[in-house]
Amino acid sequence: MEPERAWEQADRWMGTLCDLDGAAAVLEWDRETVMPTGAAEARGAQLSTLAALRHRHLLDPSVEEALHVARASDDPWRAAAARMALRERERAMRVPEDLVRALAEASSHGVAVWSQARPRGDVDAWVAAITPLVDLTREQGQALADGGDPYDALIDLYEPGTTHAMLEPVLDDLAARVGPLVDRLAGQGGPPLPTGPWPDPAQMALAERIASDIGFDASRGLVGRTAHPVTMGLGPGDTRLSTRVDTADPLSSIMALLHEGGHALYDQGIPVERRRTAAGDAPSLGAHESQSRFWENHVGRTPEFWEGLQPALRAGFPGVADHLGADDYVRALNRVERQPIRVESDEVTYDLHIVLRTRLERAMVHGTLAPADLPAAFDDGMEELLGIRPGTPSEGAMQDVHWSAGIIGYFPTYSLGNLYAAQLADAVEREVGPIGQVISSEGPAPLLAFLRDRVHRHGRLMDTPDLMRQATGQALDAGPFIAHLERTYSPTASVS
Amino acid sequence: MEPERAWEQADRWMGTLCDLDGAAAVLEWDRETVMPTGAAEARGAQLSTLAALRHRHLLDPSVEEALHVARASDDPWRAAAARMALRERERAMRVPEDLVRALAEASSHGVAVWSQARPRGDVDAWVAAITPLVDLTREQGQALADGGDPYDALIDLYEPGTTHAMLEPVLDDLAARVGPLVDRLAGQGGPPLPTGPWPDPAQMALAERIASDIGFDASRGLVGRTAHPVTMGLGPGDTRLSTRVDTADPLSSIMALLHEGGHALYDQGIPVERRRTAAGDAPSLGAHESQSRFWENHVGRTPEFWEGLQPALRAGFPGVADHLGADDYVRALNRVERQPIRVESDEVTYDLHIVLRTRLERAMVHGTLAPADLPAAFDDGMEELLGIRPGTPSEGAMQDVHWSAGIIGYFPTYSLGNLYAAQLADAVEREVGPIGQVISSEGPAPLLAFLRDRVHRHGRLMDTPDLMRQATGQALDAGPFIAHLERTYSPTASVS
Repeated sequence: MEPERAWEQADRWMGTLCDLDGAAAVLEWDRETVMPTGAAEARGAQLSTLAALRHRHLLDPSVEEALHVARASDDPWRAAAARMALRERERAMRVPEDLVRALAEASSHGVAVWSQARPRGDVDAWVAAITPLVDLTREQGQALADGGDPYDALIDLYEPGTTHAMLEPVLDDLAARVGPLVDRLAGQGGPPLPTGPWPDPAQMALAERIASDIGFDASRGLVGRTAHPVTMGLGPGDTRLSTRVDTADPLSSIMALLHEGGHALYDQGIPVERRRTAAGDAPSLGAHESQSRFWENHVGRTPEFWEGLQPALRAGFPGVADHLGADDYVRALNRVERQPIRVESDEVTYDLHIVLRTRLERAMVHGTLAPADLPAAFDDGMEELLGIRPGTPSEGAMQDVHWSAGIIGYFPTYSLGNLYAAQLADAVEREVGPIGQVISSEGPAPLLAFLRDRVHRHGRLMDTPDLMRQATGQALDAGPFIAHLERTYSPTASVS
Repeated sequence: MEPERAWEQADRWMGTLCDLDGAAAVLEWDRETVMPTGAAEARGAQLSTLAALRHRHLLDPSVEEALHVARASDDPWRAAAARMALRERERAMRVPEDLVRALAEASSHGVAVWSQARPRGDVDAWVAAITPLVDLTREQGQALADGGDPYDALIDLYEPGTTHAMLEPVLDDLAARVGPLVDRLAGQGGPPLPTGPWPDPAQMALAERIASDIGFDASRGLVGRTAHPVTMGLGPGDTRLSTRVDTADPLSSIMALLHEGGHALYDQGIPVERRRTAAGDAPSLGAHESQSRFWENHVGRTPEFWEGLQPALRAGFPGVADHLGADDYVRALNRVERQPIRVESDEVTYDLHIVLRTRLERAMVHGTLAPADLPAAFDDGMEELLGIRPGTPSEGAMQDVHWSAGIIGYFPTYSLGNLYAAQLADAVEREVGPIGQVISSEGPAPLLAFLRDRVHRHGRLMDTPDLMRQATGQALDAGPFIAHLERTYSPTASVS
């Protein structure tokens, strides 16, 4: 097959795939932002229909030859796009349809049981629901692994190119070094901010202002509002992020905006002319999370960022923010606490929650930990890593939705995001300048320019380990993250 | 093929078709309400992809037998759904793909030229763009007509079951009887309302309130805001309508809300369990328009409706609405004017614009009027029917987008809506009571109950002429509409 004709066919086929993904994203965004409650069932049917049509299109055998020809292209974008497309097709072909259907059903059932059982602390009902789901997920991992390690195969769904053997030493190192830090810092930090009220419209206006400040292009996206903050790519030129508003606490919306803003800047930084191909996205969830964490933790926790925000805060919240300084915000943010809930954790303790989950889910996939023994193992592990025991099962193994939905292998990507973000910040400090000083003197633009150059513009040309090694000059390493914590949380850290 | 199995297959096939229609509607709603400008091209690609997948699914030969078996079902809903589906397939098969593509291109080109040429009054450029489009639309009509009248075939796309032979005597009668009315009423009506300001948030709140008052279920839909008011069904349980806000004139948003509200109530009144079939919609545009016009003209122009709205108006617009009475709103609404623009026309003159367009577009399809002669013919026709000549081509033949998009056969549905609305109002007056009195004593609920029973609940069980004959006891007739105008615009019409 002639290469140019092969590419044309592959490109057209990928365009349809991307259009279906974009259409599904529009349906999901609409559902999270404005959809009336009565439409839930119909929307579910529409999304299933799009998914079924997408699946049929993905497996269309007539494009196989064209993709193989394109994979051998000298053009790295064409080769990468074909490689990504073939990888997704191969995955889809390895998992039998019966298993796909059984997983979907057990996952829906698991989430439904979880949402009832968690508030009631009904651990037996929950274990009964996830036991078959863990078995099915193991089968899925085995089918994908094709003789290899099933947990690696599951990680690979979310973090292609990363194996547990790469992760384990780094996570163990991280746990060993964070533990003593937590001992030293727990209970530290400033008092919380006054409870305001911090009016809702002023918080939403501030969120749009911050998005614009960090470089978000509102002509190619928008800032919305959802119950759970989220970022979605709805297609080339349509990147949407959302925040939530708590009128008693402005930090909630601001930090959510910075987190989602990092995702959104990545999405907008993918070369637009590659977007309708299988290479026009981030290579992994960890890579994506590195961008959200960069802006949230390496920008949003600096005194200089808050110094720059002072005029907007004072103008937007008169009578509340008048006498607050940058330090008040930073100290209110940077409180370290031993508490059991992952999503409420501070930056220092967060990864200990991930280390725990990674160990436990791997043991479940390998069959060495039965779901029935999970709640106790979870509590024991938390005591070992964090020095506390959850008060109830709802604060323990049942707290997250992931396992109840059959999502195993996903948790490590959160820590990968934290570690890569710190490596990128470290590279910025070496090559551009100290982040706080850069923000003070030039604003966030040089930081975005660095991330655009090192990360965003490469799309999926490489898997994440290679992309990050090239971007930061280092392999995956907990060192820069620990150094960042040491610096940020040292007693002398403050506005100069 | 066993009937039950045939229905299952047909039903599943129709479900997919409806899901794709719903997904496209979500994409369109999003585009009209929140989509960033930079997403326009991507959204176009997504909608084309959905349309292409829909077309392929529509023509899937494997469902043919099941549809024929289902069409013979004793269950009238199954039979109607199969009949509608087969009709749509047959239409799609009659028009060759080359012609479909040529029409789509000429239509895009026509709209693009129109949007540039109209403001400049460049009639030559416009005629050059629509000349091939009229030829293609004629070809389309001929292909659809299969030996019959091509203009009838085009009407049938929008108004199945109605022919020009059914329309012509009624439209001629209408024109003959409206003419003298216009002579009598032109220039009448009260002064316009004060220009306020009528604040935007209070107008949007009032719009939601009116929607709820007339029976719109906000748990199965929502009221939004768009540049051009619109109603869309995004699927079962998801009916959305929009209004626009002019802070100098509250009548604009209120009348748009009532118009779209009528469409939305119809959409919500289709039996939800039929929605994912080809019978679960209105049978025609004229039927749909009868509902919008009923609420806009037969409810929204009554003094009693405005009397009921007084508390909300006074509360929402203090200082502006304080001293206005129901009569002030009604008289400001019911101004009759000879002016050239269809979309700005009052209820009395409106249909003369439609009579003119129907005559001209039929002549173009029959080849007896060349597009080059259309501008002059339009002006002459307006002088004959309305007694005025457009000042410029932009106020004449170029004013509407329809012909520039290859939409011919659509205009008559507007007048059908007006006539059927009046027939329905006449039936309400006979069987329920005088509309104003009903609103005063019981509110709009009995009116909606009547429309639900006579129109909404029947979906597409019948074509519109049969549906309306059954609902009103009359064949299509201009009499009730003329009587309504006589009554509403008589010098004594006022709040009792």
